[in-house]
Amino acid sequence: MSMIETPYLLFLGDAPDMLAAKVAIGIRDWRPQNAVGQFRMEGCKADLGLSDMTLTEAREAGARTLVIGVANRGGVISPEWKKVLVMALEEGFDLASGLHNLLRDEPDLVAVANATGRTLHDVRVPEVDYPIANGVKRSGKRCLAVGTDCSVGKMYTALCMDAEMRGRGMKSTFRATGQTGILITGDGVPLDAVIADFMAGSVEWLTPDNEPDHWDHIEGQGSLFHVSYSGVTMALIHGGQPDALILCHEPTRTHMRGLPSYALPSLDALRDQALSLARVANPACQVVGLSVNTQHMAEDEALAYLAGLEADMDLPATDPFRFGAGKLVDALAAI
Amino acid sequence: MSMIETPYLLFLGDAPDMLAAKVAIGIRDWRPQNAVGQFRMEGCKADLGLSDMTLTEAREAGARTLVIGVANRGGVISPEWKKVLVMALEEGFDLASGLHNLLRDEPDLVAVANATGRTLHDVRVPEVDYPIANGVKRSGKRCLAVGTDCSVGKMYTALCMDAEMRGRGMKSTFRATGQTGILITGDGVPLDAVIADFMAGSVEWLTPDNEPDHWDHIEGQGSLFHVSYSGVTMALIHGGQPDALILCHEPTRTHMRGLPSYALPSLDALRDQALSLARVANPACQVVGLSVNTQHMAEDEALAYLAGLEADMDLPATDPFRFGAGKLVDALAAI
Repeated sequence: MSMIETPYLLFLGDAPDMLAAKVAIGIRDWRPQNAVGQFRMEGCKADLGLSDMTLTEAREAGARTLVIGVANRGGVISPEWKKVLVMALEEGFDLASGLHNLLRDEPDLVAVANATGRTLHDVRVPEVDYPIANGVKRSGKRCLAVGTDCSVGKMYTALCMDAEMRGRGMKSTFRATGQTGILITGDGVPLDAVIADFMAGSVEWLTPDNEPDHWDHIEGQGSLFHVSYSGVTMALIHGGQPDALILCHEPTRTHMRGLPSYALPSLDALRDQALSLARVANPACQVVGLSVNTQHMAEDEALAYLAGLEADMDLPATDPFRFGAGKLVDALAAI
Repeated sequence: MSMIETPYLLFLGDAPDMLAAKVAIGIRDWRPQNAVGQFRMEGCKADLGLSDMTLTEAREAGARTLVIGVANRGGVISPEWKKVLVMALEEGFDLASGLHNLLRDEPDLVAVANATGRTLHDVRVPEVDYPIANGVKRSGKRCLAVGTDCSVGKMYTALCMDAEMRGRGMKSTFRATGQTGILITGDGVPLDAVIADFMAGSVEWLTPDNEPDHWDHIEGQGSLFHVSYSGVTMALIHGGQPDALILCHEPTRTHMRGLPSYALPSLDALRDQALSLARVANPACQVVGLSVNTQHMAEDEALAYLAGLEADMDLPATDPFRFGAGKLVDALAAI
């Protein structure tokens, strides 16, 4: 990826809810020093708790790039957004986006960027000719988070475990596979934009041979049980050839995200399905822990739920963002 | 897809074996009236049993399009091939290809095609903006062939079943998902070239609502057990929401195609894995039969093997290309 100039002003547009602002939230939580403020339009239902700034105020506060921190289904750049983006270019911002609808495909944005000398960063666009996966066993260790649904906390789980490992002086790298992760870390594979035949190969490329005691924490995508995106999850399981799987879940979800007629699977079903598929690529793969997104639960409720899961499934269970990733890292260190 | 002018001269290049000539074999077997002959280069190890023709002879015999009937791993157009392709354009042929390496990305081919007024057809390139899959239940019936490995006969199984059904006066359509199928039928989705996020949606698009007694026979791709391509298979299982699965196998294969250290799964393992995943999208899905590619077995050996499978797995088993698809269609008609 080409370098994106920091710090950022985070554009939230007219986000219908906080889930839609996943990109911005990720940057705030994992690179807070890079986020000088937020820009919200009329009707915006997301709030990061950062200062609301005009474009001029953000420039005065040092912001260099306006990052589109909101993802819409289908990823369309609306006319209302367009007005803000054009003004931002004219104010001196670069633009960075992970949307399917590319900045570079919008003639007016390209024209204004050219006229003002600004840069359009589309982090969703693969910039590498990935190989076809060869399935050859690689050195080093890999951990992959898989979820009962999309958007249940797989990226946060990987980021938390990576931070915990590095805090302990262990060898660890977070491997981004989506636009948020790429905007946070500065590199990675925009997996959902990769051509089908090269998906697993791009994951092999992202997680190459490494030292025997080095862990890659691979950002998960989709879910084996989400019919829209399960193929991407499959490519992560086989291309990543994980040694360890973490099962991720959000207990208050009433149906699969965006699929009202689909119920969530049980964690047992996820364990059995994911493990049998993962062992095709790595027969030694183990499920080592459970990561639960408890953001919609009171603390005592969350702790009781986690304790119940540990008893039921005989695996360590935590909300790594809320209660720390120590248990999960202990489990990884033991294998 | 834009119309490809028939009949064809089938280009086999320097194919290292018959498997590499899958595209040409498919056209010969399913549209024999469209194949006037074959063009082989020095070292070619494939032979379709068609007349070997020079470009001039094929033009005199009426051929309009040179179809690249051979697939190389990675899909590269070699300099040796290039010489023939340029000559073909100059002789008055259009070119049609399903390779990853596009004809339109080769400046010399584009220049010669422009100068001679010929057309370059890249059937691998998606020409539709596919939607993201929505998982909504569709009317009509769908059958998907899934395999223990790549290249075990999934496309032939679907073509045979479609032909058998239409022969019986049943409502049936073969739905192509690869370059061979597209070259045979004239349309379809080049699934392995679709962007990851839209794979399942492209399969939904390909197999829309239909009459209650109409069957789509969806061409399978890859295998859940082939780490290079399993994500594509997954998208077919969830996007296709099949009512019926046919398990495909090639008993003499010693390892997964292109992956020397990977053993083939058992048909039991394939049944269990594919069925549990398919029931996410269609809880009523059933495994209805076994399709065995017995081309490397003597007839008595093949028949004994099929009888053994039927006894072991309590499912009808046949080689539909060799012994007919009647058993499989009977099984479909019964559900």
